[in-house]
Amino acid sequence: MKSLYFDGRRAAVEERQEPEAGQAMALVQVHLAGICSTDLEIIRGYMSFQGILGHEFVGEVLEGPAEWCGQRVVGEINFACESCGLCRAGLGRHCVARRVMGILEADGAFAHRVAVPVSNLHRVPTTLPDEAAVFTEPLAAAFEILEQLEVTAEMRCIVLGDGKLGLLVAQVLAGTGARVIAVGRHPEKLTCLEAFDVETCQVGAFDSASANADLVVEATGTSRGLEQAIAATRPRGTLVLKSTVAEPSQIDLAPLVINEIRVVGSRCGPFEPALDALTRGLVDVAPLITETFPLIRATQALSRAGEPGVLKVLIDCSQP
Amino acid sequence: MKSLYFDGRRAAVEERQEPEAGQAMALVQVHLAGICSTDLEIIRGYMSFQGILGHEFVGEVLEGPAEWCGQRVVGEINFACESCGLCRAGLGRHCVARRVMGILEADGAFAHRVAVPVSNLHRVPTTLPDEAAVFTEPLAAAFEILEQLEVTAEMRCIVLGDGKLGLLVAQVLAGTGARVIAVGRHPEKLTCLEAFDVETCQVGAFDSASANADLVVEATGTSRGLEQAIAATRPRGTLVLKSTVAEPSQIDLAPLVINEIRVVGSRCGPFEPALDALTRGLVDVAPLITETFPLIRATQALSRAGEPGVLKVLIDCSQP
Repeated sequence: MKSLYFDGRRAAVEERQEPEAGQAMALVQVHLAGICSTDLEIIRGYMSFQGILGHEFVGEVLEGPAEWCGQRVVGEINFACESCGLCRAGLGRHCVARRVMGILEADGAFAHRVAVPVSNLHRVPTTLPDEAAVFTEPLAAAFEILEQLEVTAEMRCIVLGDGKLGLLVAQVLAGTGARVIAVGRHPEKLTCLEAFDVETCQVGAFDSASANADLVVEATGTSRGLEQAIAATRPRGTLVLKSTVAEPSQIDLAPLVINEIRVVGSRCGPFEPALDALTRGLVDVAPLITETFPLIRATQALSRAGEPGVLKVLIDCSQP
Repeated sequence: MKSLYFDGRRAAVEERQEPEAGQAMALVQVHLAGICSTDLEIIRGYMSFQGILGHEFVGEVLEGPAEWCGQRVVGEINFACESCGLCRAGLGRHCVARRVMGILEADGAFAHRVAVPVSNLHRVPTTLPDEAAVFTEPLAAAFEILEQLEVTAEMRCIVLGDGKLGLLVAQVLAGTGARVIAVGRHPEKLTCLEAFDVETCQVGAFDSASANADLVVEATGTSRGLEQAIAATRPRGTLVLKSTVAEPSQIDLAPLVINEIRVVGSRCGPFEPALDALTRGLVDVAPLITETFPLIRATQALSRAGEPGVLKVLIDCSQP
C-alpha cells in the first residue's frame, strides 16, 4: 500500500507492506488524516522515529471484531500495555511500555491502512463528516485541559499562540463561559474565534506584565512564548504547557517560585468530549483547514504544513 | 543601633538609625536572627536590595499597640498593602505593592531593632525557646507545601537537597505519614532525619529515572537538581519548586508536557502550623544549628553561612 514513510532522514511516499490486524487490533481503512506540528518535528529528528507518519485520522474498520467491522472510527494514539501500574491506574495514555501511532514504535495513518488497538477506537456519529471527525485527536488534546483543571466562568484565560492547537484551546475554554483572550501573530487566523466570544489580541500589542490572568495556555512552542506566559500568569495562577518548546532554552524560572505559579504539562486528551463537541457543533474546525492533498502528494502536504500562516493540512488517503 | 547593612556592594556591621514604629507597625527588639540562603543571594545582587539584611527573627515588642508590648514574637516577612486585589483575596503574601523584610524595600532583622507591621506578628508560646522560634519563618515555607497540595499517607515523596530547607521539608512531609526519601550530598546532614522515618539516599546513588515519585520537592537550587526532579516525578505527578535556581539554565521542559507533570512554585508559608509544630516538638531544628555569632561579628556569620556543609547560622542580636 502507499504510505508516507520516514526513514530517519527523509519522508517519501513509498509502497509499504499492509499492516495486519493481529491480536486485539483492528485494521482501519484511512479516509482522511491530518498533519500535526509533531509530524513536522519528527522529520526534524524528534523522537528518533522511523516508520509511517501520522496520528490524526478518521476511517473505517476493515478487519477486527465483528461489532467494529464497517464502523467509521477515530482512534486514540497511545497503544498501552494495559498491564503496568499506570495502565491499571487508568493512565494508559502514560503507559511506560506504550507505543504511539506515527510517533513511537508504531506505524501511523498517512497510508491507506493503519492498525489500531480495538480499545483505542471510537465510533464517529453518522452526522459528523470526515472533515470534522479528523480533528478529534487535536481537539481531545485541547479538552485535556478541562480534565486536568477546573475552569470556571469567573476565570480570565489567555491563550498564547494562534496555531491549530491554540485556536482549538481558545474555543474549548470559551465553551466553559470563561473570559478568553487569544494572543497571536495572524489576524486572519484569530478571526475564526470571534463567533465564540473570544477576544483577540496581536502579540505585538500584548502586555504580559499587566495581564494578570488566572489561567494561561502556552501554545506557541517557543521559549519567548513561555516567558510571556509566565509573566502573564497572576500570583497563584495556572500556566498550562500545551506544546513542547523545541530547543532547551535559557528561561528564568524564579517567577514561578516567587508568584507560586502552578504549571501543568498537558498532552493527549479524552476523545469522547471532543467527538461530542464536534457533533453538537460547539466548536468550529472548518476555518482551520488550509488545504487537502491526496496521499500520493503527501510530501508536498508536509511542506505546505510547514509554511508560515498555514493551519491544518489534510491528507486524503481514500484515493487509490 | 548596630546592624548588618548591605549597600549594594558589600555587607558590613554599621551604626544605622533606629527604625520607628509608625502607623500600624511595631518596633521589635531582636533576640536572635537566622541567615537564609536568600541573604547570601542578595549580597550577590539578587533583588538589587540595599538596606539592613535579615528576615528570620524572634524578638520582643518594644513599641506598638498596648496588647503587643512585651510580647515575644516572630513576624511574617511580606508587608502587604492590605488594599489591592490580591490582599483582598487573602493573598497578602503576593501583594503587588508589598515590601519584604530584608529583601525588598524594607529593613531587615540583623539589627538590634526591626519595624514590623502589627498584622504580621505572631506570639511565641512561652515554652518555645528562641533557638527554635527563630526557625518559624523557614519552617513556614516548608508548611506552604501542605497549604498548596494535599499530601496523603499513600504518597511516595522525594526531597532533593539536604540544605536547611530540604531538611525542614522532609520533616514536614514525613509528618503527614507519607513515605519520604531525602536525597543529598551530606550523610551527616541527612542523619537528623532518621528520627522522622525519612529514608535517606546519597545523590550519587540516586536513580531519578526509576524513582517514579508522586511528589518531588526541588530544594537544591541548581539546574542539575531541577533536571533530576523532573526525571524523578511520575507521570501526572507533582513537582514542587522550593528554591529559585540562581542562573537561568538550559533545561529541557518537554518531559513536563509528555508526562503531564504539575509544577508548583512555592515560597513563603503560614506561620501558625510552623509555630504549632515547633511547640509540640513535631519537628527538630536543633541539629540544624551550625553556629551562633554575635551581631558585631555578623559579616563573619555571613561568610560562615556560605561555607560548604554549613546549615543554619544564627546571629545573636541581644548583645549590646
